[in-house]
Amino acid sequence: MAKNIQSLERAAAVLRLLAGGERRLGLSDIAATIGLAKGTAHGILRTLQAEGFVEQDPASGRYQLGAELLRLGNSYLDVHELRARALVWTDDLARSSGESVYLGVLHQKGVLVIHHVFRPDDSRQVLEVGAMQPLHSTALGKVISAYDPVAHTEVVDNEREAFTARTVTEPREFEETLGLTRARGWAADIEETWEGVASVAAPIFDRRRMPVGAVAVTGAVERLHPSGELRATLVAGVRDCARAVSRDLGAGRF
Amino acid sequence: MAKNIQSLERAAAVLRLLAGGERRLGLSDIAATIGLAKGTAHGILRTLQAEGFVEQDPASGRYQLGAELLRLGNSYLDVHELRARALVWTDDLARSSGESVYLGVLHQKGVLVIHHVFRPDDSRQVLEVGAMQPLHSTALGKVISAYDPVAHTEVVDNEREAFTARTVTEPREFEETLGLTRARGWAADIEETWEGVASVAAPIFDRRRMPVGAVAVTGAVERLHPSGELRATLVAGVRDCARAVSRDLGAGRF
Repeated sequence: MAKNIQSLERAAAVLRLLAGGERRLGLSDIAATIGLAKGTAHGILRTLQAEGFVEQDPASGRYQLGAELLRLGNSYLDVHELRARALVWTDDLARSSGESVYLGVLHQKGVLVIHHVFRPDDSRQVLEVGAMQPLHSTALGKVISAYDPVAHTEVVDNEREAFTARTVTEPREFEETLGLTRARGWAADIEETWEGVASVAAPIFDRRRMPVGAVAVTGAVERLHPSGELRATLVAGVRDCARAVSRDLGAGRF
Repeated sequence: MAKNIQSLERAAAVLRLLAGGERRLGLSDIAATIGLAKGTAHGILRTLQAEGFVEQDPASGRYQLGAELLRLGNSYLDVHELRARALVWTDDLARSSGESVYLGVLHQKGVLVIHHVFRPDDSRQVLEVGAMQPLHSTALGKVISAYDPVAHTEVVDNEREAFTARTVTEPREFEETLGLTRARGWAADIEETWEGVASVAAPIFDRRRMPVGAVAVTGAVERLHPSGELRATLVAGVRDCARAVSRDLGAGRF
């Protein structure tokens, strides 16, 4: 197999570094962290800057991510068939449930949120499109891990962090959760990732019956999970939505 | 001056190609359009795919943009100081005006929308973050062109497309528009870009008094520009918002 192009791999490493943690870094820090000579790192940064992928703060000389990434990320959303097909159905689900709706796909070791319908009230809400969620503790992540073999490998091979006292981290218990998810066709997260937050998710399939993502309703645990039980209409609503999007993607009837 | 890295420039060209027009392209089309040998293009695509920047459709073998761009684009938004400072003020402006609010910065030959507050009603609206607007015909673009010398060069050097019968394309008339913008401290777009849509924008400055972006209110021309005149409260509201954000960025009082 042919080798990948080293300067591209290094440029990607620079962008990932700037996307995490500090986010504004000087040349020496970048070179040292990635393990490059300063001259090499500077050549990469200068080219990335010329292309709009990084920007340099004029005052401090530090580097940060550039605007071209936002433009390209938006184009990614435009081209994404799953998102396009799901727009109307997720909107309806947010209206009928009165809660926020997320659409997520597997990306690297987590769930990437590619669509977010705000809870239909007047409250201030932060858009989560482009944000990552953990595979092992969220409803989206559990559904994707239960149906997608690649996601399953990722979630089993990696450390499962305990975000709350309710996060399932122990291997056997976690596999049982995934088994239950497959048996029922949906998954829940009751304060396993964020205190006070619950969610319910169901898988979306394409015309080849491959799992391509998941849809979730998420909100305050008091509303979604009153008196210790999930509202049954929520589970039905999420599964209806997932089936409708799957049908739109060409999957057969269930 | 040292040369930029050729393989990075070529990779950026591939991503830009996939972000525009067709969006799903085969290897031969990509190689031919960028002017590369097929083997060279394949090496670039394979590396970009390994890094998550492009994805290959298993059925057709065609390439499209990858999810990593969305994740990095979201990180760009997180790190952007202008956006962070403007969140509360633009929210207030949307509430008080009852219309949509955009925050834009110069990017390449246009305005990149880095924040969008939906019109505070229950209507279905499409998020415009990451979208580009033309410099010469929108209120955001005119304000940025009037105050930012780099934007001014771009807008003067490039063709100004007539989107509607009201778009100003003729050079002298266009310069007069920018002169008026500087004299008044704000710009308007009354159906010059989209039929039925009007907007008003004002510039945002940083602590060095450099123009770093602009804020705009936008909506139906019937609401913003009733009986042939802009609602005066809108102009005042947009300018108040721009001043507040500028102050938050460290600019002196006006």
